Amino acid sequence: MPKISSKGQAMPESPIRKLVPYAEAAKKRGTHVYHLNIGQPDIKTPEVALEAIKNNDIEILSYSHSEGSESYRTKLAGYYATRGIHVDPSEIIITTGGSEALLFTMGSICDSGDEVIIPEPFYANYNGFATASGVQVVPVISKIENNFALPPIEEFEKLITPKTKAILICNPGNPTGYLYSEEEIAKLAEIVKKHDLFLIADEVYREFTYDGKSHTSILERNDLNDHAIVVDSVSKRYSMCGARIGCMISRNKEVMSTAMKFAQARLSPPTFAQLASEAALDTPQEYFDEVIAEYVERRDLLIKELSTIEGVKAAKPQGAFYCIAELPVADAEHFAQWLLESFNIDGETVMVAPAAGFYSTPGMGMNQVRIAYVLKKENLLKAVNILKEALKVYNGA
Amino acid sequence: MPKISSKGQAMPESPIRKLVPYAEAAKKRGTHVYHLNIGQPDIKTPEVALEAIKNNDIEILSYSHSEGSESYRTKLAGYYATRGIHVDPSEIIITTGGSEALLFTMGSICDSGDEVIIPEPFYANYNGFATASGVQVVPVISKIENNFALPPIEEFEKLITPKTKAILICNPGNPTGYLYSEEEIAKLAEIVKKHDLFLIADEVYREFTYDGKSHTSILERNDLNDHAIVVDSVSKRYSMCGARIGCMISRNKEVMSTAMKFAQARLSPPTFAQLASEAALDTPQEYFDEVIAEYVERRDLLIKELSTIEGVKAAKPQGAFYCIAELPVADAEHFAQWLLESFNIDGETVMVAPAAGFYSTPGMGMNQVRIAYVLKKENLLKAVNILKEALKVYNGA
Repeated sequence: MPKISSKGQAMPESPIRKLVPYAEAAKKRGTHVYHLNIGQPDIKTPEVALEAIKNNDIEILSYSHSEGSESYRTKLAGYYATRGIHVDPSEIIITTGGSEALLFTMGSICDSGDEVIIPEPFYANYNGFATASGVQVVPVISKIENNFALPPIEEFEKLITPKTKAILICNPGNPTGYLYSEEEIAKLAEIVKKHDLFLIADEVYREFTYDGKSHTSILERNDLNDHAIVVDSVSKRYSMCGARIGCMISRNKEVMSTAMKFAQARLSPPTFAQLASEAALDTPQEYFDEVIAEYVERRDLLIKELSTIEGVKAAKPQGAFYCIAELPVADAEHFAQWLLESFNIDGETVMVAPAAGFYSTPGMGMNQVRIAYVLKKENLLKAVNILKEALKVYNGA
Repeated sequence: MPKISSKGQAMPESPIRKLVPYAEAAKKRGTHVYHLNIGQPDIKTPEVALEAIKNNDIEILSYSHSEGSESYRTKLAGYYATRGIHVDPSEIIITTGGSEALLFTMGSICDSGDEVIIPEPFYANYNGFATASGVQVVPVISKIENNFALPPIEEFEKLITPKTKAILICNPGNPTGYLYSEEEIAKLAEIVKKHDLFLIADEVYREFTYDGKSHTSILERNDLNDHAIVVDSVSKRYSMCGARIGCMISRNKEVMSTAMKFAQARLSPPTFAQLASEAALDTPQEYFDEVIAEYVERRDLLIKELSTIEGVKAAKPQGAFYCIAELPVADAEHFAQWLLESFNIDGETVMVAPAAGFYSTPGMGMNQVRIAYVLKKENLLKAVNILKEALKVYNGA
């Protein structure tokens, strides 16, 4: 039998999917599973986006431009302008989800064996895109003790080698919920300029910031024009994960013309979803206000409830809708599997994502889980209560 | 300024896009351009697919399964069964276009530096996916003299090295229109079994076969269960290029579980387009009968008209909707550019794709162009007439 590739063997399994078979088995047994493990919001997609699809008058569903439709890119540039980010439509390539923007970015700037420094814990699929692109992820540890703030810049500097091509951040962070401050972005700007690196920012959670804090995009800094590459997506912003529309933004013309060659090879991003994404830009501000208010309430509820569980330590998220919590267990993956296999309260249990998969350093995050607060409050409350009771039983109390 | 990757530099520009700026300039001058250069059919998308989108009742546009929705994969397996291809839904991964199926395939079976043998001329984007995946394309020359039939199997055998992982064919062929016979597929089966290689078949034009000939899928052969990987797409079959839905099919479980890791990293294929693609499976047979009849008439018209032009030699396509024609010019790219820049009849000109970009061997196909017969007959006739008159002027007759 012909053999698969070493790259294929090295492709990591998603840590949020590893436990899926156990969840499915639990459901087959009739157990209800509260999904705190995935970032699939229960928020409705804006009407204006769904209507645009229903009212489309396409007769021939043809390719769009490889860089995305001009009208969408133009309108999108308008959206960024309202956020203080001034980009030309030509500095935007529409991609099939933020995922493809990451692939185009890595392909455009990294050769096989090149290194990208990423504060960990980080979005686990960065590992997948890095492996697929032959890129080496070099983690720099951020700590739950300070809410996963930017590690000291010296820690980055220690890791820079001739093979280092970029620093990649997720801001606000998945899975940390940490929102980098303007000062932290300034520190990153200094170091990438000093060492002539790219700075990639995954800003897909840009709109989800809490407590009056605002998001700082790396594109707000003109000194980063040659360095900054932003990855964005409509998935979370408009609860349109299934659209698979994202974009890659950079003012570095060489990067963009290179990424365009990757874009041309795959022809175009999906046409229907672009229509919906363009229409979504007309979503009224009240939609966001309501969504943000809802997430803040959920977060506050989650943090408060977690604080009542003995031995649990949680980083307080200031953005996105994830929270890393340290549990009083040695092996959070074993606990998570046990929750699905052996525990329920009145036929209900909880699925969480073991956090070790969000770290690149072996042994890190073993007692941590990622909790996505994407359920309505009453369910979130039930889920955290199940977690609380489960920990008592698991730890033999 | 930080540097882009060598890989990015090596990414080929699409040969069908290279001349786009000249076409745009021609249009700006008011010249009408007949596009024989791209495989974007003018055929309407089936009503049943468009209606499924208009009547969707999605409220939260969520991720689908990474492997595609179960209902779509199940129904798709049913479609293949009607074509004599018996596959289980678990042997299908829904991808974002055939493009992504090719990327998953290359990533799953090839490491950086591995080789894939492809009869040339071939679909130019294979070069792009190969470069993006670090794969070396090894061309084996097929000839216009025999309609681009399968090259002698000894020619393949000569090229096999320890780094060879697969043979890739496109059947029916883009850009050749050649339909491989059952005997040719049998020969390929022998060689991949003998040398323990994968056989990848891009069968996206499966339904487009003419003159009573039928398509032979590599999946019809059970002796290839470990070897066969099929790439498919709804793009051309239902004139749904903009859907960006394709699939990867294999009975090799290791290949599929590896490809699933690539699929999981990018989360899911587009949800709306999957709905449309599933509905498209209910397209009545008359739709295909009409479309095929139309393409046959176009092909016959094209071949007949080309045969009236002195010095032109064309391979007669038995499938797909492309034709490679040899022109009485030294440099078809120069001629194609000249058509756009310096020639028109009553304000109309033609855009063709220089065929050199479909070859991997330098210097091959310099006097050839690919013509996509995707225009209605009256326009096709006008376009070929323009080509005829242009050749007279270009060659100073």
